[in-house]
Amino acid sequence: MTLRQIGEEKLLAQILPTLGRDKRVIIPAGDDCATARFRAARELLVLKSDCVVEGVHFKPSASAVAVGWKAMMRALSDFAAISAVPEFALIALVISGRRKVGWVRDLYRGLARAAARFDVAIVGGETSDTPGNTALTVSVSGYVERDRCVARSGGKAGDDLFVTGTLGGSIRRRHLNFVPRIAEARWLTRHFPIHAMIDLSDGMGVDLPRLAKASKLAFTIEESALPLARGCTVEQAISDGEDYELLFAVPSRKRERLLKNWKKKFPKLPLTRVGKLIPHSGPSRTGTSHIPRFPSGYVHFKRRR
Amino acid sequence: MTLRQIGEEKLLAQILPTLGRDKRVIIPAGDDCATARFRAARELLVLKSDCVVEGVHFKPSASAVAVGWKAMMRALSDFAAISAVPEFALIALVISGRRKVGWVRDLYRGLARAAARFDVAIVGGETSDTPGNTALTVSVSGYVERDRCVARSGGKAGDDLFVTGTLGGSIRRRHLNFVPRIAEARWLTRHFPIHAMIDLSDGMGVDLPRLAKASKLAFTIEESALPLARGCTVEQAISDGEDYELLFAVPSRKRERLLKNWKKKFPKLPLTRVGKLIPHSGPSRTGTSHIPRFPSGYVHFKRRR
Repeated sequence: MTLRQIGEEKLLAQILPTLGRDKRVIIPAGDDCATARFRAARELLVLKSDCVVEGVHFKPSASAVAVGWKAMMRALSDFAAISAVPEFALIALVISGRRKVGWVRDLYRGLARAAARFDVAIVGGETSDTPGNTALTVSVSGYVERDRCVARSGGKAGDDLFVTGTLGGSIRRRHLNFVPRIAEARWLTRHFPIHAMIDLSDGMGVDLPRLAKASKLAFTIEESALPLARGCTVEQAISDGEDYELLFAVPSRKRERLLKNWKKKFPKLPLTRVGKLIPHSGPSRTGTSHIPRFPSGYVHFKRRR
Repeated sequence: MTLRQIGEEKLLAQILPTLGRDKRVIIPAGDDCATARFRAARELLVLKSDCVVEGVHFKPSASAVAVGWKAMMRALSDFAAISAVPEFALIALVISGRRKVGWVRDLYRGLARAAARFDVAIVGGETSDTPGNTALTVSVSGYVERDRCVARSGGKAGDDLFVTGTLGGSIRRRHLNFVPRIAEARWLTRHFPIHAMIDLSDGMGVDLPRLAKASKLAFTIEESALPLARGCTVEQAISDGEDYELLFAVPSRKRERLLKNWKKKFPKLPLTRVGKLIPHSGPSRTGTSHIPRFPSGYVHFKRRR
């Protein structure tokens, strides 16, 4: 059955019951807005929208379950990047009425599975017909304690730069089934003074300069130290996007204790010191200038994947 | 200059400064997530995503300013429908890299103008390339007091049904430049026990049965009482979508005081009693059964506009 045959109301009537009901939610999906009990006002509200587009972020032949998983996890990875806890998600799906209902059900299965992995409630959404390709926007809200909120801009000269996991080749391996580093980020900000953090969505070659620029600093990288994914070159580790690992800045005096405690807490996930933040040495030097061969990562509208 | 030539970062660098900075916002647009101070926990968090799609909700030739206005106001109209106050918006724009940068700037001008009209801060967003048509998702968060939150489901048998404004023909007149009834909804829930409310986005022929069904009731309508927009038939008043007026249920004992005080407060906007909620008279009667010629309004995937 196609979407046009079933219509939006019947489609939602099939999908909404499968999403479960969260006790924090007052008015559930299907009414005009979602409403939810909110936590104490001492915490910050955190908001993020992210979209995945057919022909850009996934192939028309991709598994709908995997596309749903990826769409949710991309937004959640941004929560990891500031050490926030996601709570509620809205889904906006733009899709041709000619598509099969089963595809949308599978998509929601992937979304719901990813949401459940981090105790996120899908509280509403919107579906629209389109004459074109499929586009899915996931909007997540949640919270972070004021003293654990990590922006990109807090890096200090001399901070060590660390990355979690391994870099490169995600597009061939796990860009559709990665798990955002929320648990790791929450552990980091609970135990260490993390000055700045970002998730590596566009590749370290793009995201590290972003962090440095936001912190008004330059950086150095030890290329030989980069934690390469199996079969990847240094070039790929720097340029490939969609690693969804964390890159963060922390005072160098914490280095030994961080590495020791990390290994106990996350024995299967590498943590690697890849370089440090340094002062700008002059007005002509930019954040990227210390790595002449730093290629650009994935930039929307400039390259497609 | 096209979007592909300018790239996402430069585009955002041009647009973000024009959105202004809101004092509630801690981490502004451009970081991984938006974060904002949240109000006291006694209020409910309210969340809504809504999308507009080129070729469905607007023509390729439509004014970008008007498209941005409409996209924001559609989501805000859902806030009006539950008497909520919108505070923060995220923008997710899916658009071809071949489109002109000026078009996107105009789009944001419309979004910002609509947001400013209701003191909403645009706190972040996401832009993605697409090989297809343009799609824009606006995700709004805000709050409502627990005792002023009006769902569709609270209607009682015997309640009067009122609509604001006039109905029909919006598609020819003002579907791109309407103003959501937030001020009116807030006034209503401050002064009257509103049992159930909905905004008329898909047409009364669809939205009234939705409200009745959610309240587990049937309804009667006095067709001769319908407030027709100039040049519209009863059929159009019932079937045309995108009126974005409020339809609400209130105890009939409040009728006189409501009409009198409304006229004082909103002298330019009609308020009309159009019918009432009644009990289901038997298992075979549905919410729509009392108006045999009630045609269906706009249903996504079934009809296009």
